[in-house]
Amino acid sequence: MASKLRKQVVVIGGGFGGLAVTRALAGEAVQVTLVDRRNHHLFQPLLYQVAMAGLSPAEIAVPIRSVLRRQKNARVLLAEAMRIDTAAHQVLLREAPPLAYDFLVVATGALTTYFGHEEWRNVAPGLKDIEDAVEIRRRVLLAFEAAEREPDPEVRRRHLTFVVIGGGPTGVELAGAIAELASYVLARDFRAINPEDTRVVLLEGGPRILNTFAPQLSERALRSLAGMGVDVRTGSQVTHIDDAGVILGGERIQAGTVLWAAGVAAAPLPVDLPVPLDRSGRALVERDCSLPGHPEIFCIGDAAAFLPASGKAALPGVSAVAMQQGRFVARQIGRRIDGQPVENFDYLDKGSMATIGRSRAVAEIGKLRLSGFIAWLAWLLVHIYYLVDFRNRTIVIINWAWSYLTYRRGARLITGRDSKRV
Amino acid sequence: MASKLRKQVVVIGGGFGGLAVTRALAGEAVQVTLVDRRNHHLFQPLLYQVAMAGLSPAEIAVPIRSVLRRQKNARVLLAEAMRIDTAAHQVLLREAPPLAYDFLVVATGALTTYFGHEEWRNVAPGLKDIEDAVEIRRRVLLAFEAAEREPDPEVRRRHLTFVVIGGGPTGVELAGAIAELASYVLARDFRAINPEDTRVVLLEGGPRILNTFAPQLSERALRSLAGMGVDVRTGSQVTHIDDAGVILGGERIQAGTVLWAAGVAAAPLPVDLPVPLDRSGRALVERDCSLPGHPEIFCIGDAAAFLPASGKAALPGVSAVAMQQGRFVARQIGRRIDGQPVENFDYLDKGSMATIGRSRAVAEIGKLRLSGFIAWLAWLLVHIYYLVDFRNRTIVIINWAWSYLTYRRGARLITGRDSKRV
Repeated sequence: MASKLRKQVVVIGGGFGGLAVTRALAGEAVQVTLVDRRNHHLFQPLLYQVAMAGLSPAEIAVPIRSVLRRQKNARVLLAEAMRIDTAAHQVLLREAPPLAYDFLVVATGALTTYFGHEEWRNVAPGLKDIEDAVEIRRRVLLAFEAAEREPDPEVRRRHLTFVVIGGGPTGVELAGAIAELASYVLARDFRAINPEDTRVVLLEGGPRILNTFAPQLSERALRSLAGMGVDVRTGSQVTHIDDAGVILGGERIQAGTVLWAAGVAAAPLPVDLPVPLDRSGRALVERDCSLPGHPEIFCIGDAAAFLPASGKAALPGVSAVAMQQGRFVARQIGRRIDGQPVENFDYLDKGSMATIGRSRAVAEIGKLRLSGFIAWLAWLLVHIYYLVDFRNRTIVIINWAWSYLTYRRGARLITGRDSKRV
Repeated sequence: MASKLRKQVVVIGGGFGGLAVTRALAGEAVQVTLVDRRNHHLFQPLLYQVAMAGLSPAEIAVPIRSVLRRQKNARVLLAEAMRIDTAAHQVLLREAPPLAYDFLVVATGALTTYFGHEEWRNVAPGLKDIEDAVEIRRRVLLAFEAAEREPDPEVRRRHLTFVVIGGGPTGVELAGAIAELASYVLARDFRAINPEDTRVVLLEGGPRILNTFAPQLSERALRSLAGMGVDVRTGSQVTHIDDAGVILGGERIQAGTVLWAAGVAAAPLPVDLPVPLDRSGRALVERDCSLPGHPEIFCIGDAAAFLPASGKAALPGVSAVAMQQGRFVARQIGRRIDGQPVENFDYLDKGSMATIGRSRAVAEIGKLRLSGFIAWLAWLLVHIYYLVDFRNRTIVIINWAWSYLTYRRGARLITGRDSKRV
């Protein structure tokens, strides 16, 4: 019954942050319970590859249970956290009895937000989970099929027009990937249409795409996209989206498919926390990633707004922040149990990357700025390295090699029964 | 405009039969249009592996368009055939203008049937398409998760009980695979439950399982399943199915998951044909696979009831029949165009196989009867050989090797938003 005497740590969320904190607690004398609504950890940076028919869902997702099978002090519950009872130190679950905690780590991530335009959710899907990716794949592939059987050239043109809203890394990846899908992968498969007639429009509200990168890399990305035929429009505020396309200012773009990549970072917390939130609904945390007034509750990753000592903006919603915070919090829990003082979290920025397409990417590592093939190679190696599970890594490498050499895609499936039919 | 002068062949359905006839027409002076509601050809014999988390959907499905990309005289339409206008020689489609034909091949396959008990469809899913397989995977994996968080031992036992209805090859495969999933794959992943407590019940209405095989192979399969802990009950007619389990005669079996493999062969035709149907809704065809009174319309595969000259029962609903009929019909179309007399179809039975689990199968090839590891190896080689696309073959082999060596499964994903939650 040693485990009864151990401190109970509950982690909500099995993303990069939740998994990092759980694994880093392997050596501590605690019992960890990881709770997630989903049974799998998702390698989100490659989610767009599922949406673009390059990879299968299972190739970028592993059962959380499987990842933690050898960690004796960890257990996994598939359940939804409904409420945190901070007075009783309990997490209330939808499907199971309440979980008592001594330390709680909230790592619930982000959701797609439409900034108050909930009516856009169905016409312009975002890309946050496997279901989103499969739905986007479905819509994109169906658009080409609809064009193939359409006799009216006007309607056909609409089917072959794709609008991506949001010029961050996800929007750039999606726009580049659709252009590639059309010009390489599908080029020889159709008889009535020429997939190279496809029009891809990338809309960015701000003055430049990839605005977290250096201006010259934004410029490079813009030129790469233009070279692939993508129509990039900056300073473009979308005011309306419907089945027929989008409206920006006075102009309507007729498009059969609209994808939303404009609000992936900001999202409300799934669990109410008794703390101040920032404009994006993220919990404003202390320097040790705990909640103000609740040193036993930590909040990390996309769910948290961490303001670094250097001031300025909160840390970005990227996996590196979540993982570093996860390992940091695990260490703080150990220090607390040992009666040592807590430390302040310090983010070590190892750089950032965005891929644009076949052999094209941009990367910023400290003062180093890369673009083109070398950046793409760096992107590829980093992503393969970080894929959680060895076997996924092998399959993904084979799929990529196959796609790269043959210009084909391995997962061009249209599945799902209930969604919109074109 | 040579193609305008060519005879138009329309093929409805891109399964084994439809694809075989289309490919075999590559050398003929005809224009072929293959119509399917789905964009992919499905390798149905491995569908149970998707349901059991061993393979990803894309590994057993290829875009029909992709398979036929090099065949100049073939085009593919993603559309649903609604009606055949035999007077006007047209197929009416839901999403596109009517298609005129000189020859029509109906290869629409089979659907799961519940013999009038439509209310069982939601509680006991069948296994005919990718959505079915993903739904079964979802339910089976969720059952273990529900058991893990369940404090009541009675309820927990129900979650860990799986009933498979139907002792044909699909039922045997599913029952064996659930037993294996529980005892090998999931064994070390849970903390509160022991997956080896799983109970799998296989119900067969007739006197023996695998009744199309020789009695001694049914016996071998029965012993193999029993050795894996599967409770096989023959002569068991299910009279009721609901969320809590099944009733047979006076007995209720409490089960959280019920799967239906009892009515996969018999199904109504999606397209009304002006011809007599058999009890299972299949079109009774002539010796040349054409419809009585309509020599220009052929019906093949699971959609047809072909009574061989030797009399007795109609040919079974297996891929070998569909493929042989497809190639035969292509040849007859050629002969008709050339003014030659049509032939009679003759099925060459190359044997049949059913797999039971890891290293266990039964096979019947002419007078040769195999069981155990050698039958399993034969099964493996035949299935790998027939996988349509080279790249799928590679990935499937890697997945199988990985699963076999590590006792793990690569596609343990619970996805889908709308289905029943346990």
